[in-house]
Amino acid sequence: MKREKLVQHINEKKSLLCVGLDSDIQKIPTHLLDYEDPIFEFNKIIIDNTQDLAIAYKPNIAFYESMGSKGWDSLKRTVDYIPDNIFKIADAKRGDIGNTASLYAKTFFKTLNFDAVTVSPYMGEDSVSPFLAFEDKWVILLAYTSNPGSQDFQNQTLKSGTKLYEEVLIKSQTYSDSDRLMYVVGATHPNDIMNIRKLVPNAFFLVPGIGAQGGNLTEVIENGKTKEHGLLINSSRGIIYSSSDKDFGKNARKEAQKLVIQMEPYFT
Amino acid sequence: MKREKLVQHINEKKSLLCVGLDSDIQKIPTHLLDYEDPIFEFNKIIIDNTQDLAIAYKPNIAFYESMGSKGWDSLKRTVDYIPDNIFKIADAKRGDIGNTASLYAKTFFKTLNFDAVTVSPYMGEDSVSPFLAFEDKWVILLAYTSNPGSQDFQNQTLKSGTKLYEEVLIKSQTYSDSDRLMYVVGATHPNDIMNIRKLVPNAFFLVPGIGAQGGNLTEVIENGKTKEHGLLINSSRGIIYSSSDKDFGKNARKEAQKLVIQMEPYFT
Repeated sequence: MKREKLVQHINEKKSLLCVGLDSDIQKIPTHLLDYEDPIFEFNKIIIDNTQDLAIAYKPNIAFYESMGSKGWDSLKRTVDYIPDNIFKIADAKRGDIGNTASLYAKTFFKTLNFDAVTVSPYMGEDSVSPFLAFEDKWVILLAYTSNPGSQDFQNQTLKSGTKLYEEVLIKSQTYSDSDRLMYVVGATHPNDIMNIRKLVPNAFFLVPGIGAQGGNLTEVIENGKTKEHGLLINSSRGIIYSSSDKDFGKNARKEAQKLVIQMEPYFT
Repeated sequence: MKREKLVQHINEKKSLLCVGLDSDIQKIPTHLLDYEDPIFEFNKIIIDNTQDLAIAYKPNIAFYESMGSKGWDSLKRTVDYIPDNIFKIADAKRGDIGNTASLYAKTFFKTLNFDAVTVSPYMGEDSVSPFLAFEDKWVILLAYTSNPGSQDFQNQTLKSGTKLYEEVLIKSQTYSDSDRLMYVVGATHPNDIMNIRKLVPNAFFLVPGIGAQGGNLTEVIENGKTKEHGLLINSSRGIIYSSSDKDFGKNARKEAQKLVIQMEPYFT
């Protein structure tokens, strides 16, 4: 997807919402287990009920992979079902080099038609650039993640005075086609988002960590928003597991709507 | 696999060889394409011809994933076919948190019965510990990889004076069950291997980068070997794609044998 299209969809829907499809066979409503592909059936109902609110969907690949080859079939059906004008993110956190990275890119961008893949920066440029070689496709690089372990390495200060996650932002901006780089920035670091925004004024951030993890939606928007909006704010469990009734789709919609209502004031 | 078993197999075979199964449908001998599962057929022949020489096999998950659900079937068949006394490494370079990491661990350790998974350290302890929770299973943490991009972040010096990859070694050794941590250390950094060994005197290193990438086998062994040997030295393409003839298995064996002969002097 081209940047202009993404920005246009955000403006049309007045939403920054990314719905995380962490679809777990052990957590979906039990009546779905009668279907041939319960995970796809679950995703289908979530998508049907939230597609006018969501800017992006983000299947978490671990959940599909854990079901073996069947899981890959559910994933493919899901991606094919998501409407074309919604940004499709493979949350895979891959990171490998050369030919291997090219294969991962081919899998997610061609076989599965995702618009973006999350990638770990640890192995450096030659683990990122093979993904950026695909036109109109995006890399979402882990920068400052929302989990406690983000303090172990990402938040360490380098000799130069910059933090490791800042170095990731700065250095990756020098890679070819870095205009198709986005960054994972956790909502659990609201005060840092403003500094991060200064380092990469135009990049989109994928922001996990609102809700259960303690991040505050309003703070994230006020500290991170750009003219083009520049934010995709993720909610997974808070939306998709808000009910285990037969009408769980309606509840998912209600929860998604609550978030979008909080986003609306920033579109005036 | 327990550490004692791994060490015992190394002593019995007088080998440190890990054979990388980067099995690519576009590179395997074309006569295999007539089989129902060409990738498994290829792996089977490689395994048949090298199993008395190899301590470990390391399927590179990208190659299987790129074939969708069929690839996962080939991977499962391959892992099931590898004899029990050979160490099975999923080269997946995963790195995610909590429940997601647990699912990846379940996939590779339970559904697929691997002994070890390669993991990226960027997200910190809570992305590593869910893998270490599985008894007799191993995490192979990326430390100082063999690719040029290893200079981007891994080799950066922190304010404390340690390099990032050294910090990864030091900090990860404080994690629970760190006796089941191994580290990826590239053969392309022969002079650093000696220092790395001082930081983690007992840990096994998985060493990529000999052969095509320029790493030297003898230097790696002399700088990195411990009493328990402590090294798994990987070769992928140099072995598995040494011939595209019908008898490619014999050629693969020849290449594997060449490496094992170079390792032998260190077992006297």
